[in-house]
Amino acid sequence: MAITLYELQGAKDIRFSPYAWRAKLALAHKGLAPDEIVPVKFTEKDKIAFSGQGRTPILVDGDKTVPDSWAIACYLEDAYPDRPSLFGGETGQGLAKFVNAYADGVLLGGIARQILWDVFQNVDPVDRDYFRETRQGRFGKTIEEIRDNRAGERPAWEAILTPLRATLKAQPFLSGEAPTYADYIVMGTFMWPRCTSAYPLLPQGDDPVRAWRERMLDLHAGLCRAAVGYEEDFGLAESA
Amino acid sequence: MAITLYELQGAKDIRFSPYAWRAKLALAHKGLAPDEIVPVKFTEKDKIAFSGQGRTPILVDGDKTVPDSWAIACYLEDAYPDRPSLFGGETGQGLAKFVNAYADGVLLGGIARQILWDVFQNVDPVDRDYFRETRQGRFGKTIEEIRDNRAGERPAWEAILTPLRATLKAQPFLSGEAPTYADYIVMGTFMWPRCTSAYPLLPQGDDPVRAWRERMLDLHAGLCRAAVGYEEDFGLAESA
Repeated sequence: MAITLYELQGAKDIRFSPYAWRAKLALAHKGLAPDEIVPVKFTEKDKIAFSGQGRTPILVDGDKTVPDSWAIACYLEDAYPDRPSLFGGETGQGLAKFVNAYADGVLLGGIARQILWDVFQNVDPVDRDYFRETRQGRFGKTIEEIRDNRAGERPAWEAILTPLRATLKAQPFLSGEAPTYADYIVMGTFMWPRCTSAYPLLPQGDDPVRAWRERMLDLHAGLCRAAVGYEEDFGLAESA
Repeated sequence: MAITLYELQGAKDIRFSPYAWRAKLALAHKGLAPDEIVPVKFTEKDKIAFSGQGRTPILVDGDKTVPDSWAIACYLEDAYPDRPSLFGGETGQGLAKFVNAYADGVLLGGIARQILWDVFQNVDPVDRDYFRETRQGRFGKTIEEIRDNRAGERPAWEAILTPLRATLKAQPFLSGEAPTYADYIVMGTFMWPRCTSAYPLLPQGDDPVRAWRERMLDLHAGLCRAAVGYEEDFGLAESA
């Protein structure tokens, strides 16, 4: 059966969606490669109207249409039980939900409060009004105010990293000795700044989160390391 | 083999250690009841010198001595593989480590910044200088300063609860459909305020974390609900 993934598209075809990265890593873990990846801009709602909702990523696997990164992971686990497990059983799936809640409710906001302006630079020009309006509504600040205050976010950011750092000091992956979907949730989240910003979120040197991120970049034939981002193409963010 | 648990003892024999609660819940999950629970005050270091370190809880199972709540859970899982699993497999164990890091590095501090004075009231008088000195060193504030600022901690506390709340809105336990050690980690942490303070950490009514806590209080024949705390005996904290 043909697999199609609908993925958010930024400026110059950059693909920075943390949720799409989670889905791409989940597919790779199952040994599946999408036959087609369809790029979708924020405002191209017509392109994904078939899914009955307005957000990417969306997985289409044969006659199944599955929006939402968490639902995609659960679908893949059920539909491909003979391939490597994304959750390692029911308890692992339950706890991955907690990691998902931490990534969406804590980590993503902590990153946004530092690099949202950089992301904005990588949003396709046709989507910028939409992005500004929705994000400023969410944060109650302008993108420029967020940018200008980002140094002040450092103590809160360090606190946010605490549980990741302590875990990855004790074991190589969040899931233990080998990565599972919980690692992809957090790595997908870190792909968002990686593709859009030069701002140093993780300290150089001996940081356990940075070392884990390096291991994650290498997985699945370097899927994440090969991602096109500002670094290679644009150099937009350094001067932010 | 005889099982002995060394557990922190507060004023009037109150048992408020979050780490001891984790160990007691882990034992109960395995269907094991300690033959003896030995109370240990903070400053009774001589009583636990045999363990080669200075903290409770300590599990002694026959000729094995295991300090540290996380190590106790891992030991029980390995030593009693035929009894109900505490982790649900390797991925579950890996992710429980993340929950442990969240509980110790985020949740416990968030609770302390609201109820540390109440805990102090429940520390045995012989331990109070020790408790004040070590805790004030950790927080960089006096216990009274922490108490007087606790209303100001509310927004940070709500943020800390976010991932718990989102997870427990989606499923009955952190581990999914049934509780495992990850639930005990967080529940043990909540037993600390339950035994020492009347301060309302969770909203009345429809809160998913409160509803989960009620379910946890009922587990293992109401082990946690039966705990003696300030509520039944002392009424110390209400006026804090």
